[in-house]
Amino acid sequence: MKIGILGTGMVGETLGTKFIQLGHEVKMGSRTANNDSAAKWVKAAGANASQGTFNDAAKFGKMVFICLKGAVFLEVVKTLELPAFAGKVVVDVSNPLEFSNGLMSLSICNTNSLGEQVQAAVPIANVVKTLNTVNCGVMVDPPKGGDPTMFLCGNDPDAKKKVTDLLKSMGWRDIIDIGDITKSRGTEVLMHLWMNLFGLFGNPHFGWKIVRGS
Amino acid sequence: MKIGILGTGMVGETLGTKFIQLGHEVKMGSRTANNDSAAKWVKAAGANASQGTFNDAAKFGKMVFICLKGAVFLEVVKTLELPAFAGKVVVDVSNPLEFSNGLMSLSICNTNSLGEQVQAAVPIANVVKTLNTVNCGVMVDPPKGGDPTMFLCGNDPDAKKKVTDLLKSMGWRDIIDIGDITKSRGTEVLMHLWMNLFGLFGNPHFGWKIVRGS
Repeated sequence: MKIGILGTGMVGETLGTKFIQLGHEVKMGSRTANNDSAAKWVKAAGANASQGTFNDAAKFGKMVFICLKGAVFLEVVKTLELPAFAGKVVVDVSNPLEFSNGLMSLSICNTNSLGEQVQAAVPIANVVKTLNTVNCGVMVDPPKGGDPTMFLCGNDPDAKKKVTDLLKSMGWRDIIDIGDITKSRGTEVLMHLWMNLFGLFGNPHFGWKIVRGS
Repeated sequence: MKIGILGTGMVGETLGTKFIQLGHEVKMGSRTANNDSAAKWVKAAGANASQGTFNDAAKFGKMVFICLKGAVFLEVVKTLELPAFAGKVVVDVSNPLEFSNGLMSLSICNTNSLGEQVQAAVPIANVVKTLNTVNCGVMVDPPKGGDPTMFLCGNDPDAKKKVTDLLKSMGWRDIIDIGDITKSRGTEVLMHLWMNLFGLFGNPHFGWKIVRGS
């Protein structure tokens, strides 16, 4: 499958590398066509990796991953050629994090979510929110022992099916479809406790498991 | 131990019954001294159970549980004799839930929390926030199989130690002290996803497990 990645940070690189390993073709997009980080990644990732602008990556992918910091996509999308998104699966793995005086808060929450705003910004695409509850190292290598839960939500069942298949190929086994895109509200707010536990543990290598009673 | 419970709903009754079973003395408090629900509970729960006003229950307990709906304690506290709380452990198991057109939201979140406001309302007490991430049936009988995680936070280490001991006696084994009372922000927001999963599963018999990677 052809996958576009918007963003050249650690999340984009880690997912891109995993997708290449899984046999996909990946184009990493940035504000400029020749971004240095993307160029280094392409060189390391091999023949199925390429780079370009955000528009190039969006046009390239059948599936397009949003791996930008915070709610930056909502700005970036204003510069994009929206027809490129027609019918595509857009996977939003970002969270609307803000930091002020070292304290984290969410710029959108409670009665709205970044996932919903992303869907509103690209109404001709099918947005799926997932992977945003864990660190990128965990995204591509879920802890083996505890069989952690991965949540996904979105308005289009077929898009969720495609993303579920990809998640399974990445090692996720306990995947819960939590509903339409408004359900992003429930997973984005997990960042509050996630950031807290990250500080306590001193590392981001953990996930969430929903333990069902008998 | 003498335990006061503020609130005569399902949460208060379930916790009260468990505490009686564990050998504690429990006084259930309500707006009136002779609340019907409390009277029925006392009759069923036996010699170590009693009832009274909110003030009676607060005075009675060495540990006082807030089992009121939503953020109702912030109203109730205005009617209480605050000196009764001096040096006591106040355990807040409530969440600031609001429902409008069938949709849940939180009346306090992101940059504040009910736990923090409870602590501000009873500054002479040591507030511990815990158990608010699960249904009351799960509070007193955590799923055996998956060893779910219980979070607690608060400003006073000794109060957290006492509550941890009580949690252990209730069957919780994976207990994480997530820090001071501001960390309530991270657990109260779990209600968004909790409510979603409750709807999906059709029952509230589940908990959260933090799965650490290797």
